[in-house]
Amino acid sequence: MLSGCSAGLRLLVPRRCVLLSRSVTSGNPGRAAAVDGVLSAFRSICGDDGVSLGETVREQHGKDESVHRCRPPDVVVFPRCVEEVSALAKLCHRHQLPIIPFGTGTGLEGGVGAVKGGVCFSLRNMDQILDLHPEDFDVTVEPDPGADASLCGMAATSASGTNAVRYGTMRENVMNLEVVLADGSVIHTAGRNRRPRKTAAGYNLTNLFVGSEGTLGIITKTTLRLYGVPEEMVSAVCSFSSVQAAVDSTVQILQAGVPIARIEFLDEVMIDACNKFSSLSYPVSPTLFLEFHGSERSLEEQVNTTEDITQSNGGSDFQWARDAETRNRLWKARHDAWYAALAMRPGCKAYATDVCVPLSRLPHIIVETKEDLIESRLTGHIVGHVGDGNFHCLMVMDPSDQDELHRVHLFSQRLARRALAMDGTCTGEHGVGLGKRSLLCEEVGPSVIRVMQSLKDAIDPNNLMNPGKILL
Amino acid sequence: MLSGCSAGLRLLVPRRCVLLSRSVTSGNPGRAAAVDGVLSAFRSICGDDGVSLGETVREQHGKDESVHRCRPPDVVVFPRCVEEVSALAKLCHRHQLPIIPFGTGTGLEGGVGAVKGGVCFSLRNMDQILDLHPEDFDVTVEPDPGADASLCGMAATSASGTNAVRYGTMRENVMNLEVVLADGSVIHTAGRNRRPRKTAAGYNLTNLFVGSEGTLGIITKTTLRLYGVPEEMVSAVCSFSSVQAAVDSTVQILQAGVPIARIEFLDEVMIDACNKFSSLSYPVSPTLFLEFHGSERSLEEQVNTTEDITQSNGGSDFQWARDAETRNRLWKARHDAWYAALAMRPGCKAYATDVCVPLSRLPHIIVETKEDLIESRLTGHIVGHVGDGNFHCLMVMDPSDQDELHRVHLFSQRLARRALAMDGTCTGEHGVGLGKRSLLCEEVGPSVIRVMQSLKDAIDPNNLMNPGKILL
Repeated sequence: MLSGCSAGLRLLVPRRCVLLSRSVTSGNPGRAAAVDGVLSAFRSICGDDGVSLGETVREQHGKDESVHRCRPPDVVVFPRCVEEVSALAKLCHRHQLPIIPFGTGTGLEGGVGAVKGGVCFSLRNMDQILDLHPEDFDVTVEPDPGADASLCGMAATSASGTNAVRYGTMRENVMNLEVVLADGSVIHTAGRNRRPRKTAAGYNLTNLFVGSEGTLGIITKTTLRLYGVPEEMVSAVCSFSSVQAAVDSTVQILQAGVPIARIEFLDEVMIDACNKFSSLSYPVSPTLFLEFHGSERSLEEQVNTTEDITQSNGGSDFQWARDAETRNRLWKARHDAWYAALAMRPGCKAYATDVCVPLSRLPHIIVETKEDLIESRLTGHIVGHVGDGNFHCLMVMDPSDQDELHRVHLFSQRLARRALAMDGTCTGEHGVGLGKRSLLCEEVGPSVIRVMQSLKDAIDPNNLMNPGKILL
Repeated sequence: MLSGCSAGLRLLVPRRCVLLSRSVTSGNPGRAAAVDGVLSAFRSICGDDGVSLGETVREQHGKDESVHRCRPPDVVVFPRCVEEVSALAKLCHRHQLPIIPFGTGTGLEGGVGAVKGGVCFSLRNMDQILDLHPEDFDVTVEPDPGADASLCGMAATSASGTNAVRYGTMRENVMNLEVVLADGSVIHTAGRNRRPRKTAAGYNLTNLFVGSEGTLGIITKTTLRLYGVPEEMVSAVCSFSSVQAAVDSTVQILQAGVPIARIEFLDEVMIDACNKFSSLSYPVSPTLFLEFHGSERSLEEQVNTTEDITQSNGGSDFQWARDAETRNRLWKARHDAWYAALAMRPGCKAYATDVCVPLSRLPHIIVETKEDLIESRLTGHIVGHVGDGNFHCLMVMDPSDQDELHRVHLFSQRLARRALAMDGTCTGEHGVGLGKRSLLCEEVGPSVIRVMQSLKDAIDPNNLMNPGKILL
């Protein structure tokens, strides 16, 4: 990957002036000069290959997977270790340049846009698994040791996913973080090398940085809880005649105490898109994807209880995915839901809402949301981690159709407010980023916003860390 | 309870001057005058019965269950609702009087001592269960709706207990907090009435206040996760010939993925004390108290796996506690360990250490600790939530024996540093309070302490909230 950056960099010498002058025209000549003056120092820290002014590279790093418009940084740096991150941050601090941490760019609320320009810290070269302690059920990793989203990016957005109903979100699974603060100092939120399963030692900085979306510091290591691979795993798919029946089943399965590992809802629009995108052939009706983890006997019991419940709600017989290959195919289809939705209207863009409500409110909010989609003449695919009360509506729209964009915006605001009215949140896992700053104010109220702002001011007094995100 | 306070108050008018003059001699005439000047306003808020200057009342509120010496507040107030807490806090803020929140005084690190005098807010009159949502698995309560420790006090110290290995600590189970800040303003950390099971909405204030030990605000409501009552519960006791065998069994049970609900270790000194205090007759050797939750079939499987493991480590046959009464007796004995230890040397005081290490380090640290006890000529009872790597050494000592006190202090410091050297923490659940402020510095390092101090300064700029705790 670095050789690509390097090639980009070599091409860039003549282009740089154009780009910087564009920054100048955007109204901040001081910052442009500061960036210009600091480039050689950046290169001395992370090498020529580790600094890129290439337009393509900058644009890749100025956007995530959302519809928020690209806001490229002035420069992208590719540090290889925490010492380089710290040295680069010290330079940015000295020159008062904004710092935007970047994992893989898979965010959904515009969290990586360089709204005030500055220096994007791409952490993709920090990809090592550093300390694996299977006997203690923990591991310490650099930001991006594999998979899709980066792990430190997931920590930064308090992310979760299909397994959260059983194993918790990043909030419950991050034990310690190494963080580079805006002034370049390096802290370990729970103390260096600490990894007890419980602690009551001082303020919980770990969970303050989890979900801080890069606005308090750059996460350069995370210590995570591990879980044993279950003796047996089995997945199943169950179709229902109505949303209400599928969601009622979910609530009842949890109320029955079944330690279900995953329980994902897809409405008929979503399952249709997944069938087409992933060559599946499930009935086009409200659907649950389920997964059970445990010993053979415990699995049998979990499955029996769950089947009793789904059948009492008129659900279909389970379609099984027992072997690893079939299971993986099923979950890949679920994880590709975003791309499946996009594929339904080629050339379009998608926006994924993200709300979370108390379990018992789920049937009501999903039914209302589907009615709203029809009234708003929008294509929306509903998919969600319903075991947590968390769901998304993936809306596919023509970015050149201003009216449709406007309807999507209004619909999303209504959906978020519907969740707020039901004691819920405007974001269960995607974070606030740029897109939900006003909704956050509505959700927590001005006094909590003031406390959040005071914490931001305390840790990042010059507002250098990912400015303009979370707080207005 | 209030009539007692009222009686104390009536007796107190002549005594008050003496008490306040004692404050004066302690070097703060300004504060004494401020307290004097604000009393009638306090009474107008929470009634004559809600304000106490009684020496006995003040002394009851100046200490917890630890060996830290009593530091009585200047006055104790008994607000009945959040509005009264807020109004009282506003007065304290205006007069720059320290505020010390008080739940039930069952802390173990001196967290309630009024080291700078001030106003103790006893929250015992706030005892309501406000919103119970069994269908959503959550409840909102006032500070002290029952049980032993108060629930908001548990939130304030990031407490946990015997069930944490399966159900998590307060960190994982608090969903929202109502907090009165030092200036009297009232916030809801996740927004008013919010109770989604997941959220990524802004900074995680909830987990900043969990474990803040009253130094950031007064917790007046907490929203907690609930769990279904298991279909079946069964407890068992298993004896071992060595500490190593008992702790090895614990680690192996967890590694085998048994979803054990409780797994508590008691060394032979502790089980002996419990036998005597609670009229039990277990073998006087290292012991595990176990509890399994689940369906009948799942229980059978959990028990079989666990028995295989304990027997392979030379453990005894299980002694069962199947019916509710026997189980309750067993766990009452465990929870009375503190009093059992104290009863071994009447007239003595106890200190409970509290460390937590990665699971695999447990056998080593417990064995070393027992050797250290012998070398230090101390009576120590080891008991712990070993499934979390967390254990306590309850030391009983003669408070008039300065040499013994000194040996306890040195031993406790060595134990904490031993935990730190093993990647652990100096406190898994008791908190920092007064007693572990220096150890906290060693644990997290000066840069983290600076961040913690900056958060404290941001939220409580006048250092009115429980001053002198957590941070030096």
